Amino acid sequence: MPRLRFRISMSLDGFVAGPGQSVQHPLGVGGERLHDWAFETAAFRRHLGLEGGVVNASSAVIDEQLAGIGATVMGRNMFGGGPGPWSEDPPWNGWWGDNPPFHHPVFVLTRHARAPLALEGGTTFYFVTEGLRSALEKARIAAGDQDVGLGGGADVARQCLAAGFVDQMDINLAPILLGEGERLFEGMGTELHGLRLARTVAAPNAVHLRFERP
Amino acid sequence: MPRLRFRISMSLDGFVAGPGQSVQHPLGVGGERLHDWAFETAAFRRHLGLEGGVVNASSAVIDEQLAGIGATVMGRNMFGGGPGPWSEDPPWNGWWGDNPPFHHPVFVLTRHARAPLALEGGTTFYFVTEGLRSALEKARIAAGDQDVGLGGGADVARQCLAAGFVDQMDINLAPILLGEGERLFEGMGTELHGLRLARTVAAPNAVHLRFERP
Repeated sequence: MPRLRFRISMSLDGFVAGPGQSVQHPLGVGGERLHDWAFETAAFRRHLGLEGGVVNASSAVIDEQLAGIGATVMGRNMFGGGPGPWSEDPPWNGWWGDNPPFHHPVFVLTRHARAPLALEGGTTFYFVTEGLRSALEKARIAAGDQDVGLGGGADVARQCLAAGFVDQMDINLAPILLGEGERLFEGMGTELHGLRLARTVAAPNAVHLRFERP
Repeated sequence: MPRLRFRISMSLDGFVAGPGQSVQHPLGVGGERLHDWAFETAAFRRHLGLEGGVVNASSAVIDEQLAGIGATVMGRNMFGGGPGPWSEDPPWNGWWGDNPPFHHPVFVLTRHARAPLALEGGTTFYFVTEGLRSALEKARIAAGDQDVGLGGGADVARQCLAAGFVDQMDINLAPILLGEGERLFEGMGTELHGLRLARTVAAPNAVHLRFERP
């Protein structure tokens, strides 16, 4: 049974995106600072097809978080293109260019049907209008003997957490303040739904917290 | 020059107290969960004059955080007794009983004058009505060649952070959600005022983040 593995970068004050998310600012204004710790590493740059970068304690964590994922589920906002029906001219093909860094099937939750979008490098986006459980089921089948990645955004993540679907949650804590934006745990109450801190990795510019079911 | 060292326990969702702080619930409803990681250790129990407890990665951090503090500054809410003039019958002498776990002078910020309160074990509470800078100055003199501890609550901590007074900030991150209550960084914007992550200690039930000026 594939596990559902959720990973996300969160600021010290609990935000996973800055304010004013838009096509210009997919992570909200200032939200890219959440990922500075990753972009400086060779591990993450290689994943994006880029050269350079450093090796530090975050490197092995990045490799581990990206390994063994056979399919990804994400919300419409994470795929982008704004709310409402899909624009056809020009079509919105996600934030990631012609060769997205997934290299496996990605199931996008949306209320608006759209034909699958096959891009370079093995990434095909499927648009699921039948809801979260359907997207997770499709992803589990597509993942085969690998795990399913939960990409976010925060709303889909909260739904999965609250339903007890998440088997592993990796919080990459960026030691910065965003001050405003979208809080990961907003409205979640006091419940981690069976997840407990299982491991912490200290890195120079991030703290990697792994939660699992005991 | 004594440093100002701030330490606090914060939940994964950013709260340093639960909702509804009162005499019955000094840390707010559920807020005592913020300190479970400490209360289970022999190091913290010894500090409170209690026996028992475990030794784990949090133990050395606790000893370190408590060592070398010659005076403490705290806000009225942390000392307690409700807002307004001090009650005389019965007098409010803090949450900590006859032998508070400070063992040094403690400067309480308040708008209501009160004579110093000397209790057992070397703790004397002084009530400062001349504002934050005055309390810090009095504490620095009292601390001698040791450091000044900043106890909280969140409001006084934010004032000190925003003014750039804090030399060291230890966030003891409890891997739990409180859901509501008082957020440490509420209204702080994006600024850590010169503090940067300097060290992380991974413990079984807490993650200890130390911020300092580079």
